[in-house]
Order: sequence, then structure tokens, then C-alpha cells
Amino acid sequence: MVMQMTEDQLTLLIIKHLKEQNRETFQTIIDELQPYDLAVLYKNLPDKHHTKFLLFLTPEQIAALIQELDAKAQIEILQKLGVDKLPTVMDLMQNDDLADLLGKLSVDKIEEILAVMKEEEQQSVKNLMKYPPETAGGIMTNRYVWIQKHFTVREAIDKLKIFAELAENLYYLYVLDSQKKLVGVVSYRDLLLSDIDQKIDDIMFTRVISVNVHADQEEVARLIERYDFISVPVVDDEERLVGIVTVDDVIDVFIQEANEDLGKFAASGKTIDFDTGAITASIRRLPWLILLLFLGLVSGSIISGFEETLQKVVALAFFMPMIAGMTGNTGTQSLAVVVRGLASQDLDRRAVIKLISREFGVGLIIGTTCGLLIAGIAYFWQGSPILGLVVGSSLFLTLIIGTLAGTVIPLILYRCKVDPAVASGPLITTLNDIFSLTVYFGTASMFISYLM
Amino acid sequence: MVMQMTEDQLTLLIIKHLKEQNRETFQTIIDELQPYDLAVLYKNLPDKHHTKFLLFLTPEQIAALIQELDAKAQIEILQKLGVDKLPTVMDLMQNDDLADLLGKLSVDKIEEILAVMKEEEQQSVKNLMKYPPETAGGIMTNRYVWIQKHFTVREAIDKLKIFAELAENLYYLYVLDSQKKLVGVVSYRDLLLSDIDQKIDDIMFTRVISVNVHADQEEVARLIERYDFISVPVVDDEERLVGIVTVDDVIDVFIQEANEDLGKFAASGKTIDFDTGAITASIRRLPWLILLLFLGLVSGSIISGFEETLQKVVALAFFMPMIAGMTGNTGTQSLAVVVRGLASQDLDRRAVIKLISREFGVGLIIGTTCGLLIAGIAYFWQGSPILGLVVGSSLFLTLIIGTLAGTVIPLILYRCKVDPAVASGPLITTLNDIFSLTVYFGTASMFISYLM
Repeated sequence: MVMQMTEDQLTLLIIKHLKEQNRETFQTIIDELQPYDLAVLYKNLPDKHHTKFLLFLTPEQIAALIQELDAKAQIEILQKLGVDKLPTVMDLMQNDDLADLLGKLSVDKIEEILAVMKEEEQQSVKNLMKYPPETAGGIMTNRYVWIQKHFTVREAIDKLKIFAELAENLYYLYVLDSQKKLVGVVSYRDLLLSDIDQKIDDIMFTRVISVNVHADQEEVARLIERYDFISVPVVDDEERLVGIVTVDDVIDVFIQEANEDLGKFAASGKTIDFDTGAITASIRRLPWLILLLFLGLVSGSIISGFEETLQKVVALAFFMPMIAGMTGNTGTQSLAVVVRGLASQDLDRRAVIKLISREFGVGLIIGTTCGLLIAGIAYFWQGSPILGLVVGSSLFLTLIIGTLAGTVIPLILYRCKVDPAVASGPLITTLNDIFSLTVYFGTASMFISYLM
Repeated sequence: MVMQMTEDQLTLLIIKHLKEQNRETFQTIIDELQPYDLAVLYKNLPDKHHTKFLLFLTPEQIAALIQELDAKAQIEILQKLGVDKLPTVMDLMQNDDLADLLGKLSVDKIEEILAVMKEEEQQSVKNLMKYPPETAGGIMTNRYVWIQKHFTVREAIDKLKIFAELAENLYYLYVLDSQKKLVGVVSYRDLLLSDIDQKIDDIMFTRVISVNVHADQEEVARLIERYDFISVPVVDDEERLVGIVTVDDVIDVFIQEANEDLGKFAASGKTIDFDTGAITASIRRLPWLILLLFLGLVSGSIISGFEETLQKVVALAFFMPMIAGMTGNTGTQSLAVVVRGLASQDLDRRAVIKLISREFGVGLIIGTTCGLLIAGIAYFWQGSPILGLVVGSSLFLTLIIGTLAGTVIPLILYRCKVDPAVASGPLITTLNDIFSLTVYFGTASMFISYLM
């Protein structure tokens, strides 16, 4: 029933039951919801109902809810929870989510919150907090079930039964030797398909691919994507198993990466989202803008170098924005192809040559098309065939240059191990302004006697 | 041993064994590789070794290899396979991959290939080919194991044992009623944790979230991301189970989507990758470029409207590229924030107002900073305080306008159900050219008597 309701209907219904203290009906409704839906409901509820809402939820539900919220709402909930519920909720939360959340708090606050938790959970969370957030260690969970290779299938299942709630999102058991080194994995499927008395040693998969705990999260994501894994074990420098990264965390990495790419592409620096404040957002955007402002002045000084030419034929100024703009546009298009291409595959020498030749071909084709088009337009608009020739041939040249700049600059950055996405759209655009104005006024100066 | 080798070492080793006909050693090496690695190896091998390489592989290995390659290489392999291996390989391939591959061939070729397959596999592939590629139906597999709710756990496991190879990447059994309607799911974990004689009815999860077979692939991806699923069942209009979408297919959707976003952002039209030919790439890029060319001419005609002003103070032209460029840059930054934000969350009225106010604040801050900076620079460069005032105040105004345009235009498009990413960087940049030049020359004209 609940699944057919709109968000607003659901919110109103919940408010009604909160007001009428119908704890039981409230629970039947909440019971139907997935954690994500619970979080949407919480966000839709007016603030004044939040405290009662939390009071009506079980610790399990609160733990599920917290994991779907952003940092601000999470901290709000932690503050609202009484001393009676807080420890239970903390113990129930996934330790990797908890470590992320605590990472955003002050040291005092972290100690205060950890103090209410069970000793072993405390230690487990503290272990996770050691790793930087964007590494395998930062996104892994350290709740998994491990067995030894001399176990039988029956013993493995018995151990799983005891520790099942530790490993809710996992579909594998991990086989460790006496030094805690990872020697194999067994899927739940393997357990089901095997005879109950078989040895784990005989059914486990031994050529396990694992990642180092310090590996970058993008490397982990790429691994899971390439091999179609649903989880990947994380080991320390001595090959001991320390945690598991699951595919749902990797999806978040992919989304975050795509956002960062687009952010860099637009030169907006570190991630700015809908909740970033105006001042923070400005501070993140200004450095790039000021750099681009000075680059823009370089264009200005090029024009000022051709002051005489411009003074004589003011009509040249009419085509300036179009020429500079088009060069920037084609450069941005090429850049987008390169940035996304490099995000998904590596390039060898042959591929680089092929790509540059292709883009040169593209530059020739669009340069010819647009050059001829604008030559005709300029001729008819200003009545001067020479102006048409100047504008058309300039555009032809600048489109080729712009296309190549948009290809070659990110490739050079990539070669120098700099993320090519920082050769952002605006940077390419501004550089292309400089190239195109030089070509345009250079050409015009050559023909100046015919233009006047 | 193989895992420690570089790609080049591995390729050379394989060539050696191919030449020496060491089929056995060849197999021990191949056996260590994941399908992805096998595909990398195949691509690294010179073409002349491909036929022998395929000859040395088992049909299982060829099926795994094909699924990791692009369409061109896939078709090449199909053509190289003899009539003895082709049918086996086809039967072994995942039906969804096979349907995708066949979708790229001519009708004759499809019939020819399908004809060699087993009757039931043929039918299953044909069923999948009915659905457009970017829908739930287009990315689902129709190989899964289903049970009925009156089954016991033992009976379910027995059925799984028979059909296990059908459902290699799945971790759930699907419970159907007599009309094939989906009534529940049971995870392999549930089966392991339950008593062998329990009824499926008692342990199955009934509030299953499914998607319609015609749903857009992005909707499926969003669902899996939100709920941290590793697969989602796909049903037809009568709620009958027709297939399963797994998380690995969804990761591909996310990557594809991010590429499309950046492509639209750069106005390069339909996806262009490293393998697209120059002519195709040009044809995809030209329509946008020609539109932008005409928009660029609008900027030109604005300047021509202020010809007299420009004639009198040519120095005004020096600051044109900077003002137009900066307005475009700030607009692009705002656009990136909106496009990525909308990709991950929906916006209500309150959020829209908050976002626009924030961006207005950002415009004010960066407008003031950059405006003051350029006013000083213009004064010192050209020695005219009035020119400094004109340039500075214009930049202040155009940065506010540019920031708002980059925010409001994509929001309006979103409201009109047009993908906001089509309000691409170049489009916003070009529109902002027009706004900024009008403001700049308008301001300058007001002060023209002081400027001369």
C-alpha cells in the first residue's frame, strides 16, 4: 500500500500518526520502507517532527536511516539521540559509514561518541579511521566472515550462521591462513552447490585478486568494473586481509569521479554542490577566474598590438567574438573526447598518433565548412570580398589550431601525469582566444591595404 | 606467476608458445587470466596470431573473451570461428551480451548466426532483442533460476544445483506464482542460514522492488544505486518476471551517462570516442558549431551597433575578449554545478530558490573582486580612470548576469523536461558573449564623452 503513495501523501500520513501517537500503525508503515525511502521521508518531514520521529523508530531503523543522510543531518540525529539509544545505534551502524561520519567531527566529539560504544566496535571503528577517505582502506568495511581452509562446508556454514549479521552485504567467505593471509574465497553459491562434508580447501577459489589498503579508490573502482566483481578483498602490505570493498561503495566512487571531472572541466575547483555556501563556493571558483582574467588580458594586449589595423578597419572587430568563440568551442569539443577517453582507457603511442590525425582531419573538415560559410556571410554583410577572404581563411586556420590544441594539450598533461581534466574548458577556451586573435589580426594586417 | 608479468612480457610469452605449438603450457597460462586480461592479451597480440590463438582456446574461454571486446573485434572473432566451435561459443555466451552483439549486425547475418544455436537459446536471444538497448529489457539477462513458494529449502537448492551455470552472476533465487508473477526473492545467504526443510514461503522476502521492462536504463541505475542492490528483477506489464539486471551492467550505464553528460556539456553531440572516424566525428560536431557560429555573429552585430563608440575609443576593444571570456567562464562553472547536481537529486521549489540565491551571492562576490581588480589594471594600463570605471563596473555586472544565466537557463530546461546538459558550455558561453558585450558597450557609450 505504502509503495503506491506519493512522497507528500506519505509525509502527511506519518505526521498524522506522529500527532496521534499511533506508534503501532507508524511501525507498520516504516516497516515497508527501504533505508533510502526512510531518509527521503525524514528530509521531507518538517524539523519540528524530527525528535518524535526518531523516538518512534527502533535503533535498527535509525542506524539504517543515518547511513543514507548527508553529514549535516547525521550529526543532527546523533545530537538528538538520548544516551539510551545512541550506543545501540552506533553499534548497529556499518563501521565504514561510522568512520566516515566521525571523520567529519572534532577530536573531542569523536572521543565522546566512541566512548559509548562496545570496546570491540570502538577498536574496529578506530582501525578504519586510520585510512584516508579516498583509498581502499577509507571505503572498505572490516566486518566480514573468515574461515580456514581445513574447515568443511558444514563448519563454514555454522560459522556463517553465528556471524551472519556481521556480513550483511557480502556474498563470499574469505579463507585465511594462520598468519591471517588471504589464501582463497568461497562464494555462498559454492557452499550451496557443494557436498556438506567437502573441505573448503577443495572448493575454494585461490587466484583471488585483492587490492592494497593504500590503493586509490579509483583504482579499486576500475578493478571492480573491469572484472565485474561485486566485492574485492583489501589486504595490508603483508598480504593480510583487513577489509572488503563492496560494489555499492564503488558506484558512489564512479559518481563522485564523474562530478569531479565535470567540475574540473568547468574550472570550478573542488566539488561545489547545492549545499555549499556562497562564500565557500566563491573562494573555490575565484583562483581559476583570476588566472583566466589575466589570460584574457593577454588577448587584449594582442589586440592592442594591432591597434592601428583595428583603427583603420573597425569592421574587423565585428568578427572577433565569433572567431575567438568558435575556436574555443571546437577546442572544448576535442577536450571532452580526450578527457572521457582517458578516463576509461590507457593510450599507447599508436593510439595517440591515430587520435591526433583524426582530430586534424576533423579540424580540416569543420574548418573548410565554417570558413566557406563565414566568408560568404562576411562578403554579403560588409560588401567586401577581401574582408570575406580574411575572415574565412582566419576561421579555417583557427579551427584547425583550436581542434589540435584541445587534443594535444590534455594529452601532454596526461603524459606529464597531470590529470587532463584540469586543462579545463575555460583554460582551453582562453588559450584558443589568444591563438585565434593572433591569426585573425595577423591575416588582416597582411591584407590591410586592400581592406581600407 | 602470470599475475606478476607486464602486459608485454605476457604477450611475448604467448606468441612463443603459439609458435612452438605448446598447447598445454599455453592453457596453464590462459587459465590464470580473468576475462578482462584475456581481452587485453588478445588486443595486444599482432593480428597474424589471432587465428591460432582462437584455435588454442576452449569454447568457454572464447565466450568469456568475446564479452569483453568491442563490437568490431567481436565480429572479427565470429567470422574466424569455424562451424565446429561457433555454435558452442554462442550457446555459452551470456544472452544479453549476445543480443547486443547481434543488434549490430545485418538481418541476414543475424539469421545465419542464430541458426547454428540450440532452439531454446535462439528463442531466448530473440526475446531479448525485442527491447531497445537503453532500457531495462535491453540490459537484462534472461538466465536466472526461479522456484515456487511451496518449495522447501532442499528443493530450491536441488533446482539451483541443476541450473547453476545458468545464473553465474546472480546471488538470488526468484519466487514465481503459477502465472509467472514475481512474488518474492530468496538470497543464497537465506538458503544457507535456513533449516533444510523450511518452506520458501516462510523465508522469502516479499516486498521486492522491481522495474518495468520498458524503464529507461538510467532509472534502473538510479534504483540500484539508491538501494545498494546488486541486482534488480525486471517485470513486464503484467508483473511477470522477464529478466534480471545486475550491478555490473549498471556500472557501465553510469560510465556511459557520465560520458554523455560531458559530451553534451562540450556540445559534441552524440558520443564520439577514440575509434570514431574523422568524417563521422565532424558530422556530429558541425550542427552545434554552425549554430554557435550564427550566435557569434549576433555578438558581432551588437559590436557593429556600437561602431561609433568603438571608432572613437579603440582601447575598448582591448578588454572585449576578457569581459566576454570571464562571463562565459563563470557561467560554465555555474552550469557544471547545476548539471551534476540535477544528475543526482531532484529539486523542489525551495531548493531552486536557495540555489539561485546562492549563485547570486557568488556572482556578487566574484563580480566585486574581479571588477575592482580589472578597474585598477585598466587604469594603470591605459592611464584613464574613466576607462577603469567603465571596464570594472561592466565586469561586475556581467559576472552577476553570467553566473545567473549559467544557473537559471539549465533550471528552466530541466523544468521543461529538456536535459539541462544540452545547455552546453559553448551555448552558455556564446549567450554570455551577447549579454556581456551589450552591457560593456552600453556602459561605455554612456561615458563616451569622458572617455575621449
